[in-house]
Amino acid sequence: MNRLKAKINDVFWSKYDALVRDVVIPYQRDALNDNVADADPSHAIRNFRIAAGEEEGEFYGMVFQDSDVAKWLEAVAYSLENHPDPELEKEADEIIDLIGRAQQEDGYLNTYYIINGLENRWTNLKECHELYCAGHMIEAAVAYYNVTGKRKLLDIVCKFADHIDTVFGPEEDKLKGYSGHQEIELALIKLFRATKNKTYLDLAKYFLDERGKRPYYFDIEWEKRGKTEHWPGHRRRGPEYDQSHLPVREQSQAVGHSVRAVYMYAAMVDVAMETGDEKLLEACRRLWNNIVYKRMYITGAIGSQAHGEAFSFDYDLPNDTVYAETCAAIGLVFFANRMLEVEPKGEYGDVMERALYNGVISGMSLDGKRFFYVNPLEVNPEACAKNGNMEHVKPVRQKWFACACCPPNIARLLASLGHYIYGVKDNTIYTHLYIGNNTEVEMDGIKVGLTQKTNYPWNGKVSIDINLDGSKDFGLGLRIPGWCSDAKVSVNGQQIDIAGVIVDSYAIITRSWQDGDRIEVDLPMEPVRMRSNPLVRANVGRVAIQNGPIVYCLEEVDNGPNLQTLVLPKDAALVVSFQEDLLDRVNVITAKGERVKEEDWGKELYMANPCTQYEPADLTFVPYYAWVNREPGEMTVWVWEK
Amino acid sequence: MNRLKAKINDVFWSKYDALVRDVVIPYQRDALNDNVADADPSHAIRNFRIAAGEEEGEFYGMVFQDSDVAKWLEAVAYSLENHPDPELEKEADEIIDLIGRAQQEDGYLNTYYIINGLENRWTNLKECHELYCAGHMIEAAVAYYNVTGKRKLLDIVCKFADHIDTVFGPEEDKLKGYSGHQEIELALIKLFRATKNKTYLDLAKYFLDERGKRPYYFDIEWEKRGKTEHWPGHRRRGPEYDQSHLPVREQSQAVGHSVRAVYMYAAMVDVAMETGDEKLLEACRRLWNNIVYKRMYITGAIGSQAHGEAFSFDYDLPNDTVYAETCAAIGLVFFANRMLEVEPKGEYGDVMERALYNGVISGMSLDGKRFFYVNPLEVNPEACAKNGNMEHVKPVRQKWFACACCPPNIARLLASLGHYIYGVKDNTIYTHLYIGNNTEVEMDGIKVGLTQKTNYPWNGKVSIDINLDGSKDFGLGLRIPGWCSDAKVSVNGQQIDIAGVIVDSYAIITRSWQDGDRIEVDLPMEPVRMRSNPLVRANVGRVAIQNGPIVYCLEEVDNGPNLQTLVLPKDAALVVSFQEDLLDRVNVITAKGERVKEEDWGKELYMANPCTQYEPADLTFVPYYAWVNREPGEMTVWVWEK
Repeated sequence: MNRLKAKINDVFWSKYDALVRDVVIPYQRDALNDNVADADPSHAIRNFRIAAGEEEGEFYGMVFQDSDVAKWLEAVAYSLENHPDPELEKEADEIIDLIGRAQQEDGYLNTYYIINGLENRWTNLKECHELYCAGHMIEAAVAYYNVTGKRKLLDIVCKFADHIDTVFGPEEDKLKGYSGHQEIELALIKLFRATKNKTYLDLAKYFLDERGKRPYYFDIEWEKRGKTEHWPGHRRRGPEYDQSHLPVREQSQAVGHSVRAVYMYAAMVDVAMETGDEKLLEACRRLWNNIVYKRMYITGAIGSQAHGEAFSFDYDLPNDTVYAETCAAIGLVFFANRMLEVEPKGEYGDVMERALYNGVISGMSLDGKRFFYVNPLEVNPEACAKNGNMEHVKPVRQKWFACACCPPNIARLLASLGHYIYGVKDNTIYTHLYIGNNTEVEMDGIKVGLTQKTNYPWNGKVSIDINLDGSKDFGLGLRIPGWCSDAKVSVNGQQIDIAGVIVDSYAIITRSWQDGDRIEVDLPMEPVRMRSNPLVRANVGRVAIQNGPIVYCLEEVDNGPNLQTLVLPKDAALVVSFQEDLLDRVNVITAKGERVKEEDWGKELYMANPCTQYEPADLTFVPYYAWVNREPGEMTVWVWEK
Repeated sequence: MNRLKAKINDVFWSKYDALVRDVVIPYQRDALNDNVADADPSHAIRNFRIAAGEEEGEFYGMVFQDSDVAKWLEAVAYSLENHPDPELEKEADEIIDLIGRAQQEDGYLNTYYIINGLENRWTNLKECHELYCAGHMIEAAVAYYNVTGKRKLLDIVCKFADHIDTVFGPEEDKLKGYSGHQEIELALIKLFRATKNKTYLDLAKYFLDERGKRPYYFDIEWEKRGKTEHWPGHRRRGPEYDQSHLPVREQSQAVGHSVRAVYMYAAMVDVAMETGDEKLLEACRRLWNNIVYKRMYITGAIGSQAHGEAFSFDYDLPNDTVYAETCAAIGLVFFANRMLEVEPKGEYGDVMERALYNGVISGMSLDGKRFFYVNPLEVNPEACAKNGNMEHVKPVRQKWFACACCPPNIARLLASLGHYIYGVKDNTIYTHLYIGNNTEVEMDGIKVGLTQKTNYPWNGKVSIDINLDGSKDFGLGLRIPGWCSDAKVSVNGQQIDIAGVIVDSYAIITRSWQDGDRIEVDLPMEPVRMRSNPLVRANVGRVAIQNGPIVYCLEEVDNGPNLQTLVLPKDAALVVSFQEDLLDRVNVITAKGERVKEEDWGKELYMANPCTQYEPADLTFVPYYAWVNREPGEMTVWVWEK
């Protein structure tokens, strides 16, 4: 399936689009230039200046600091696509020029090693993220080239990729390595698609194919460099940590560092698509199923533990000690989006939607200035401060991070969201996401314009207007979300019996479309109580409220402290009201709940039955993604039911 | 209150007494001598030989390895008290001789520093446990002296304590330090009581008084020794970790490393008793209340987190990530026992009983050969292996530990249990624990013999026969456990109205007792559902089954996997049956429960309501302390109620 790109004009997402442009990109530029007060310094731009020999100084920051610049550039590219901005483009061009000046004669480009000694490059692929940084720079270059047509950064990364191709490969004199943090693989596919140079596809495939071979490459390089470690203790994380425990085609379980995992799975789908490698695709399907049916939070977050920022095991989904890195949810969107390119199945769209509206955007404050790395589903601020198991969980979003992977990652995804709405395959235009937008696609040489309008996710009414010169036979696939059981579709006011045309949760309406045709989709939204599989220990006895794609939570600011003392009676009505003035406009859900009467307990810690009494309590649920944009406090997604 | 010592002859505890004698002491002797196959080596005895110059070699083991020998000797002393054993006594004497040969001229005694360089002694009190090891050796010496009358070890430790007194104190040329791990304080009180030498009481008080002063002593010594660390990273644990954050008299919350905490609180009670320091006693009461009403598990375990093996905060009592070190529960018994010496209040006895019958003996297997360091209340073996938050939790007891503090600690407590049953104060003999035993006490010059018989904890019927020459006026205080609401007491078959004579949960029967009088106590036991205070997040919606002092649990071996899918209906009867052949004879509790029908779920991870169906399931509860003495598997104390 080919992706379309659409211009977003949406009640929900246009705000994010504007935020990225007006706040996040300038803010992150300031951060990269160390101009944000009271935040961890970045030093990322200075590293390039030092590497270019234009400034004295030492490398500072994470070994992968370069990638923050790359992700920012990528976000800028997508933003320019939506909103041309000569001033911003000039800034980007200047940074690209700087990057070019830092690049070495042979094409090598990584400020950490340029500054600290090129003799050590490619000696610690496990820990030092050289190929990861290269990947991000390539992604930025492709995006910038696609949007602006400017080749400068593309040429820089082609030269770098060509250099990498001289270092890694099956030939005897080359290293048989691969990146400790996957990213270059999916980047090389993009570079291949932009340049049509098959070397890059072959190199991506090579990196995937080497992974999981024995002896373990990271042991070999460790011996070779004299058994040093960049991060002491890092080595004891075994091959599962970086998904090198098995050849990729033999993997069935999502293990290890969750961002690495989903970046790799996304690249596996890409390579499978480009090469027709069915065995690779089967592995992607198995890994997808393992994540989505056994290792994913209801928010679309993944990564159950801080140890190794990793998956743990099937159905292990603790809400409070969770990792749920913003980047991992973003990576799941990448994976889902690529699976959709392979085959239009509703479940891919459902998961993409679930992650986007919940676990991804929860990573950024509504003002675009603060970020979560970790996105817990249950928070008690006192526990974050006083119980080491929650040490990694911050009860409020942070300005910037020493390890700043998430903020620019969320920016580049939001800025490119227009690429995720539609796909075209076999004479059918598939609508994966319901987001107000307009786009144009050529079907057999005929330009077809689509204008989508909706108040999604606040209600499920969507209209799509078709604009074309005359008429054209083609299919229009409409994703019927998994949460919706009674979807209705009409064309020009005429309801269609969709039961017969639903294939893999897409209603496919094939007809001769005329200019001015209007499709109306009605996806009735009602708040529902979601339960999780009883094998999920953390959620026994609890429900989560979901309305359409939006997962809700209780916050202390609305419901008082000790959220665990609140219960939602089974028969309590869930009442939706749209609040113009709250949290940038949201649907709030209220219910008549109950609260355990604490006073009956006095000072006792344990008492014999019976002793739990309840009193009425009004419950207010707000969208999870918007939590802690007011007073900090407790939060929970899963609520006790009675 | 003065403690009595009783000879145990009990259906429940005599087995432990025999185990300590026949299994634990020989096993631990073998361990200390590195003669246990497949277990972590100890090297503790060899360290003494090397320190004595009788063997070549290096120090091996933890910096506090000496304390394992001391705790073993202390256990041997108590065991000899119960069961004279010339062979064992000879072995102990030989080790004591060895210890004497390792002692330095000036009295110093610590194999780590003797072997590695005496010039570094007393330079790292925060991390290196010199005073802690000294404390355990003193405790062993006092016990050995009290039981055998032999002064050799007592003389050794007096010489060592005198040396310590030359090093620490208010005088200008002395160090103003104190131990990073409290223990010497309570040991010095014992030494004071054994020798009547007030120097030792003053030194104990000095160590308590210095604690919490600013500047922080551990910063001073760190600067002085050139900012080195014994355990890299240890230093970032702030003063709360070792309870040096405030002067002890100003402390109100149980914080930091839980073993250090309760050892210190126990010493604080001792010093308060000896000096009449009311302010110190008030701090003990506050700390007691904080633990018992806000920071204690239902098993009497303490220490909610592995990070720092520490308390966390009020009502934070996670069941699966818990630390609950065996030594901490033992330390809570010490603290409770000393509070009882100050004032006979039932709540002290209740907590002592709760810890003893649950969180302490859970630390040892029924065969006395394997031990838990961590005593979780909920275990999923897969989580222990695959989720880093449970890395410290072992799903089966271990043979020995690199850090072997718990096994000898449990041995010395069990061997000395006869000291915990009674106390005498103001012409009243208080019965704190119901354990079959006989003892003798002098009341005003008249010898009174007491013979207690009971099947406790399997039922609550207790008889106490009085044996004396003629008659004697005195009080007999009988603890009415908190779990018992309808206790009955009769004397010579005549029921007594105890309502009027209960003071602080002790029924006090004062009369002229005659030889042959028989007191019968009936404490009807019925299994009850315990709930925890709703502020305890981990236990919302769940109950724990308790019968008398025994807390129960569900094990996978009886109930199948996925214990979280089991529910106990509110109206389900709890049926007790005594099982002769199970787990060394226990009361088992069964109930007609239900189980979530998993098959309704298929592969779904999340579904909209309604979707939880139940099927009948027989539930079998066994005593918590006896868990995983059969097949390893899941376990939970807290069970879902419906």
